[in-house]
Amino acid sequence: MKIIAIDSSGLVASAAIVEDDKLVGEYNIQHKKTHSQTLLPMLNELKNMVELDMSTVDAIALAAGPGSFTGLRIGSATAKGLGFALNVPLVEIPTLDGLACNLYGTDKLVCPIMDARRDQVYTGIYEFVRERGCSRCQNLKNYELSCLFPQCAVSIEEIADKCNKTEREVIFLGDGVPVFEEKLSHLLTIPYSFAPAHMNRQRAAAFAMLAFRYIKEGKVVDAKDHAPEYLRLSQAERERKGEHAAN
Amino acid sequence: MKIIAIDSSGLVASAAIVEDDKLVGEYNIQHKKTHSQTLLPMLNELKNMVELDMSTVDAIALAAGPGSFTGLRIGSATAKGLGFALNVPLVEIPTLDGLACNLYGTDKLVCPIMDARRDQVYTGIYEFVRERGCSRCQNLKNYELSCLFPQCAVSIEEIADKCNKTEREVIFLGDGVPVFEEKLSHLLTIPYSFAPAHMNRQRAAAFAMLAFRYIKEGKVVDAKDHAPEYLRLSQAERERKGEHAAN
Repeated sequence: MKIIAIDSSGLVASAAIVEDDKLVGEYNIQHKKTHSQTLLPMLNELKNMVELDMSTVDAIALAAGPGSFTGLRIGSATAKGLGFALNVPLVEIPTLDGLACNLYGTDKLVCPIMDARRDQVYTGIYEFVRERGCSRCQNLKNYELSCLFPQCAVSIEEIADKCNKTEREVIFLGDGVPVFEEKLSHLLTIPYSFAPAHMNRQRAAAFAMLAFRYIKEGKVVDAKDHAPEYLRLSQAERERKGEHAAN
Repeated sequence: MKIIAIDSSGLVASAAIVEDDKLVGEYNIQHKKTHSQTLLPMLNELKNMVELDMSTVDAIALAAGPGSFTGLRIGSATAKGLGFALNVPLVEIPTLDGLACNLYGTDKLVCPIMDARRDQVYTGIYEFVRERGCSRCQNLKNYELSCLFPQCAVSIEEIADKCNKTEREVIFLGDGVPVFEEKLSHLLTIPYSFAPAHMNRQRAAAFAMLAFRYIKEGKVVDAKDHAPEYLRLSQAERERKGEHAAN
């Protein structure tokens, strides 16, 4: 099974081609250019480099939100276009779940945080647990992502409090880390660390890991039915609501 | 500090640009093309995409061996060329150490295995331990790679035996996994698992993580002094030795 995965939910633009256990190719950049200028050229470059026959692709996985509103729309539009053109389903991966997959194999809790502005973060709390029903070999213990606190938009104080209550060690990652690192150091009472550069931002390849599981569980959607999960109202919608309330 | 990292030691061609805690860009492919056709075009593509000013690069990190002899020579030649042209030092990262860094944050042992042919694997055993002298904050616990069994060329039986003797859980990764997966399932008496697709092959970005530490410790070399670490004699050298012995 071959999957194209894309992520443009945050500061990173990321594209990956994964075939079963093989990462055929991935391309990630974190640069000022807007994702509308980078994402498709990156995927095209990758496709040419690995001589990908697009008709062999089985599904398009994407970071389905939350994240930057514009970024999510670029990712969704790209995934819809690919899904329509190739006649393959889309796999909607919650952004924070995909981000947490960067840290496969850790025994610590994983807490991705994205800066959501307006004094909030998009976040969640995850851990890796033994795979259910994995009995190919007595000693083979693969892991799968498990969610302790599903993705949401909350204050940094609230997520720090949730982490403290677990009384477990936590690894933080995501573009919220440089923004809230100082605050976290005051709020946290548990041991914690920050993921290093090669693991601390979105990677489409990590989203593909979850996509294989979602596909096995039948959790796919038609391109026409996909919409990103913003988790909050956009600024324009908030302002319109405010105007209506004022009138 | 800004580092370009490259890896062409195995089946993957990989290039990354890392600035301190930020992965500016990475490009990884695992495809039949030879690395001499891919590595420099990939780096050039990446450089253009992130508008990298080459004069701001501080060091070139590379997978310095072991690995494919031709692959290592392509990586070394590329790194030497860049080091000479930019007048910056090279950082030689042992291939297995860099590969192990894919699994930062795990409490399990990490055992990268690369198929070395002739019934051998390039391998080593690693773990992540609390960073020495990290006292910025009482609860901040970063980790660094620690080597239990340094990289070497041994039989799969020998490394499985070493792993069993640790009596700890091990995560395996590397291009040796699909080759020796079946054998390992018979040899291992400890719990184990295999890293998923997004973590199971060389990533130049992971090599950069170690490069920052090496630079801090002054472990850099001049481009003219660098040579890859093959760990074994090449086939040509073995054959010449055989001829000499026969004469």
